[in-house]
Amino acid sequence: MKFGGTSMAGTERIRRVANIVRRQAAGQNGERNQVAVVVSAMAGETDRLVNFCREANPMFDPAEYDVVVSSGEQVTSGLLALTLQALGEKARSWLGWQVPVRTIEAHSKARVQTVDAAAMIESMESGEIAIIPGFQGVSENGRISTMGRGGSDTSAVAIAAAIGADRCDIYTDVDGVYTTDPRIVAKARKLKAVTYEEMLELASVGAKVLQTRSVGLAMKEGVRVQVLSSFLGDDSPPADDLPGTMIVSEEEMDRILEEGEMERQHVTGIAHDKNEAKIILTRVPDKPGAVAHIFEPLAAASINVDMIIQNVGRDKGETDVTFTIPQTDLPRAQALLEEHKGAIGFGRIITDDHIAKISVVGVGMKSHAGVASTMFRSLSDRGINIQAISTSEIKVSVMIDEDETELAVRVLHTAYGLDAEDAA
Amino acid sequence: MKFGGTSMAGTERIRRVANIVRRQAAGQNGERNQVAVVVSAMAGETDRLVNFCREANPMFDPAEYDVVVSSGEQVTSGLLALTLQALGEKARSWLGWQVPVRTIEAHSKARVQTVDAAAMIESMESGEIAIIPGFQGVSENGRISTMGRGGSDTSAVAIAAAIGADRCDIYTDVDGVYTTDPRIVAKARKLKAVTYEEMLELASVGAKVLQTRSVGLAMKEGVRVQVLSSFLGDDSPPADDLPGTMIVSEEEMDRILEEGEMERQHVTGIAHDKNEAKIILTRVPDKPGAVAHIFEPLAAASINVDMIIQNVGRDKGETDVTFTIPQTDLPRAQALLEEHKGAIGFGRIITDDHIAKISVVGVGMKSHAGVASTMFRSLSDRGINIQAISTSEIKVSVMIDEDETELAVRVLHTAYGLDAEDAA
Repeated sequence: MKFGGTSMAGTERIRRVANIVRRQAAGQNGERNQVAVVVSAMAGETDRLVNFCREANPMFDPAEYDVVVSSGEQVTSGLLALTLQALGEKARSWLGWQVPVRTIEAHSKARVQTVDAAAMIESMESGEIAIIPGFQGVSENGRISTMGRGGSDTSAVAIAAAIGADRCDIYTDVDGVYTTDPRIVAKARKLKAVTYEEMLELASVGAKVLQTRSVGLAMKEGVRVQVLSSFLGDDSPPADDLPGTMIVSEEEMDRILEEGEMERQHVTGIAHDKNEAKIILTRVPDKPGAVAHIFEPLAAASINVDMIIQNVGRDKGETDVTFTIPQTDLPRAQALLEEHKGAIGFGRIITDDHIAKISVVGVGMKSHAGVASTMFRSLSDRGINIQAISTSEIKVSVMIDEDETELAVRVLHTAYGLDAEDAA
Repeated sequence: MKFGGTSMAGTERIRRVANIVRRQAAGQNGERNQVAVVVSAMAGETDRLVNFCREANPMFDPAEYDVVVSSGEQVTSGLLALTLQALGEKARSWLGWQVPVRTIEAHSKARVQTVDAAAMIESMESGEIAIIPGFQGVSENGRISTMGRGGSDTSAVAIAAAIGADRCDIYTDVDGVYTTDPRIVAKARKLKAVTYEEMLELASVGAKVLQTRSVGLAMKEGVRVQVLSSFLGDDSPPADDLPGTMIVSEEEMDRILEEGEMERQHVTGIAHDKNEAKIILTRVPDKPGAVAHIFEPLAAASINVDMIIQNVGRDKGETDVTFTIPQTDLPRAQALLEEHKGAIGFGRIITDDHIAKISVVGVGMKSHAGVASTMFRSLSDRGINIQAISTSEIKVSVMIDEDETELAVRVLHTAYGLDAEDAA
């Protein structure tokens, strides 16, 4: 079980979490569950600690930064153990270095290497609930490491894999994964299950429910993840009844579909992302190697380029190159491109951050043609102009004007038969 | 070097501390010093964390309590390392489990067993300043332990002993140890040096500058401790010039006296303590074993009995027994005595918390008779009634009415020639 910072903000909320954990441990039909719980810091605490670090040293040493910021989860894990004990449960905290959760040496962006959970498993088998601070591990040289903001989801999946958990329940402030953003489409439906691949595509294009890295790790380790709400009432049933959305392998999804638990859809969900910006470089020489001159400096600066289109330019031997990058990287990218203008040889830079990317995602489209054409026709029928297209095996994305985001999402949600009334 | 919570309260104050540390590390005459720094949590932070624990579980598990409250020092040690780095120094934090500071199993009241400082010494030899969170260690079973409130002084002395430090500088909000409380006697003088034994007597009777346990450990390990102010200006000289009070062995004190650095006094200082209460049990049977019946239950409840006097009672075969205990233990002690009234067989209990203990302390009285008689005569000349007396090799204490505390301290300070004008 994993609980985020909002759920852990203060001793009152921690008591709610303890009650959810206790019900899960109590199990059903008299069979107790063994439970490990990964916790975030109290909401706001990590920001407070990060600010201390910035004030102390703007160019902070990541190893000492980790010593400071990891303390937030240390506090909440101790407090949850104390609260469970007050409810009569056996519980103890396992800090990153105690489990140990070994990470590779990249402080503040550490990645889990191994989790040696033997001692923790022994404790769980003796009936103790294990509480693990998220976001933290121990580096090769025995120092505290942290995994970057939002790393607690990844901690939870890594712990679940290490103890061979039946399931990793991620409690969030939404109650599952929806066919699209319910704030845009009132008829959006909560999905009973999605595959890892679909979740990765949905997450990476803006449906921010889980940290992307945690989904990748769950896929690699085969951990069944459930996203569900931490605002369930105290009298709600244990999560064994699966009130949220399961994130599973394609094989398990096939089983779920065969057993008729879910209707087979070509498209699982519609995602949107307003955080990209478009760059057009005009009059780039149309010759081998020219495009490499554009993208090599961006890659070196860790700027992710997403969609790329080459248009034939007005003059022979020249072309316009259009591509998208995260909006936050726009100033850096512009500076880099100007710096390399000589080597690239473009005319001028045109930028536009008033764009949106709309994606239809679904493993069903692997075996079903016509998904892309349905998308293009539906948008064009409503007069929405498609500026660029990119596809993967289970996703079709288009770039459109940002103002048309909500309209496009609604049109597509209906076009693919995802509206709640159409559901079985 | 050790800095308390007031000195570490916020990044601005930590910057002041970093400057003091940097000056100490820079040394004098071009020779750098190797420096280890023990830090407390930000003032108020430990209280905040203790309150969280109380809210979570009033009967808290000390092991989880330690996980929560030790985080305060973890934060300040990381921040001091970051701040020193910002000033261009090499510095790193060493948490209790990293040094490691091994403690014996008594969570929240842990005692230092061994400090394996080899790795830390190596780091210091390479020019790194070591920052150690005070108050914390690691227990035999690999969990975080804490040493009880004020344990950072003890941490500092233990670390100083482990690294063979030339000196352990304790920075506090006073600038040294005085002949008596300067708030009572304006002519009180700062002492250049006191012996461990004197400091123990002065601390235990109310001159609260250092945690008593840290002085005992310094005496056992032969660590030279200096008490000095953390409010020294940024342009003040390094502490090598000894602006505070040195706490040393009797041998070093003899050398200091022989070299004329200090004038030899029979009495080093006058302490007062208003935190005791007096209990009189009337008509206790005057027979062997009666007194044991009184004090055994108190000892079993860890209530420290200080002065004891037996007065002959009005009736034959009976006596009044008077003794003092800490005021905070008075309700518990009364309840215990009533509970054992049958076994003890006393008449009634009379209590008085309106008393004070005044002590004159000095190794010089070992070789000089007449110290006690000077005390009794001076007090009686001013009409101050002595209710009880107790003595040790280097201390004479009397119990008086609390209202006469300040008068008694001033009278004795003058009587023993301690007033500043009389000093060399």
